[in-house]
Amino acid sequence: MSNIPGVCVSPDKETQKYVFNHTMLRIKDPKASLDFYTRVLGMKLVRKLDFAEWKFSLYFLAYVPEGTDVPTENEANARYAFGREAVLELTHNWGTEEQETTPYHNGNTEPRGFGHICISVPDIQQACARFESLGVNFQKRLGEGGMKNIAFVKDPDQYWIEVVQPGLL
Amino acid sequence: MSNIPGVCVSPDKETQKYVFNHTMLRIKDPKASLDFYTRVLGMKLVRKLDFAEWKFSLYFLAYVPEGTDVPTENEANARYAFGREAVLELTHNWGTEEQETTPYHNGNTEPRGFGHICISVPDIQQACARFESLGVNFQKRLGEGGMKNIAFVKDPDQYWIEVVQPGLL
Repeated sequence: MSNIPGVCVSPDKETQKYVFNHTMLRIKDPKASLDFYTRVLGMKLVRKLDFAEWKFSLYFLAYVPEGTDVPTENEANARYAFGREAVLELTHNWGTEEQETTPYHNGNTEPRGFGHICISVPDIQQACARFESLGVNFQKRLGEGGMKNIAFVKDPDQYWIEVVQPGLL
Repeated sequence: MSNIPGVCVSPDKETQKYVFNHTMLRIKDPKASLDFYTRVLGMKLVRKLDFAEWKFSLYFLAYVPEGTDVPTENEANARYAFGREAVLELTHNWGTEEQETTPYHNGNTEPRGFGHICISVPDIQQACARFESLGVNFQKRLGEGGMKNIAFVKDPDQYWIEVVQPGLL
């Protein structure tokens, strides 16, 4: 894939230790989103920050391998949360939880931009059956649409979460 | 952090092998975006898919540790790209590269939603100096605003990329 226009195949050594740390989404209600991301999707809350002066809180979630203890001391916790890959940052602007519907836009109607996040699962049939049993909202079920082997579920703010099984083409 | 409303501390064992695989952003011009993400940010293009029937292509980028060979055979490549964490998926709807400005919305003006992605770097002063020397556009420089120790740069579609140094609170 080195002959694709724009691709640099030997980037500056300076970038070798860069890490794709997180993706940030704004949410209406942390209680609903934390329930969804921890109970339904199985992520762990690894860091929380409150900014009283600016009236918002940040929740950092990630899949933490079994047996890994997330440090709780502030600096060690920050090093963990900002040093690792694949963190989801949820931003809660205080007060939005009182609104009836989410004030946020999921990027899949105009104006478009961000599309979705994606989790990969070992068994997509089993994962989707579990999501159905938990009453999760689907944007697209397995077997629907052009791509039969992937599904999309929706989080409490209607952000799309793609579900894939790595070996299933 | 187990006493925060909504947090489930012992999620279903079923979710233990789930992986936060990727985040998808739509882009105007793959040549410009691939140059930015590979040359400036140092990511590697790990998979590319073309859907001629629907006139779009997908580019999957990630930080690949030195010494790791990304499989090229299609199924092994898919297992790699969809099995690992921290992948950035860029969606190119054919033809948008002809437009003068990006048709996409970065989520930080109304309607808001998605906010940014974030890379963490070992030395943020050095990283930001390098970005300046490469002519990268900044949304916020170090020392500006309420949070002095983080920066935000912008990609070719004006999506925000936060830059953090894990140990720097």
